[in-house]
Amino acid sequence: MLVYDTAAERNPKVLKTCRKYLHWTQRSVFQGELSTAQYRALITALRATIDPDYDSIVTYTTRSPDLIDTTTLGVALGGPGDIL
Amino acid sequence: MLVYDTAAERNPKVLKTCRKYLHWTQRSVFQGELSTAQYRALITALRATIDPDYDSIVTYTTRSPDLIDTTTLGVALGGPGDIL
Repeated sequence: MLVYDTAAERNPKVLKTCRKYLHWTQRSVFQGELSTAQYRALITALRATIDPDYDSIVTYTTRSPDLIDTTTLGVALGGPGDIL
Repeated sequence: MLVYDTAAERNPKVLKTCRKYLHWTQRSVFQGELSTAQYRALITALRATIDPDYDSIVTYTTRSPDLIDTTTLGVALGGPGDIL
């Protein structure tokens, strides 16, 4: 799972990179299941995109999706098939 | 961990409720360690606040914070001491 808070001018590139590896959940949130190699590639691509003095990206990872319980209140916005 | 995407007019109340139980991480993201009772109280308060046909709140919970690895790229925006 990944959340981003980046400058508007870099958002399109950050979104493009995130969408390559993850699916969109909500506003500034992506999630997905990645191999270690895919995760490393995502992090490398994001590091090359953001301004580390201004932007912020936080990722939350677990060994298995079974370890996380997800609860949605209200509308379920994202999904594997959604296009942002 | 909680992410919200709610209408602007309800944001202040959603933020107030989230801040009562969690600390702010980034933009629309909160996180924190809650007991089951605290978590239930938070969910009940949020259900009473949002418009379920329009707003969206997603929570991600694990049994232990040890099960989650957090990686920050760029600026670390939130923290237990930060006030939004």
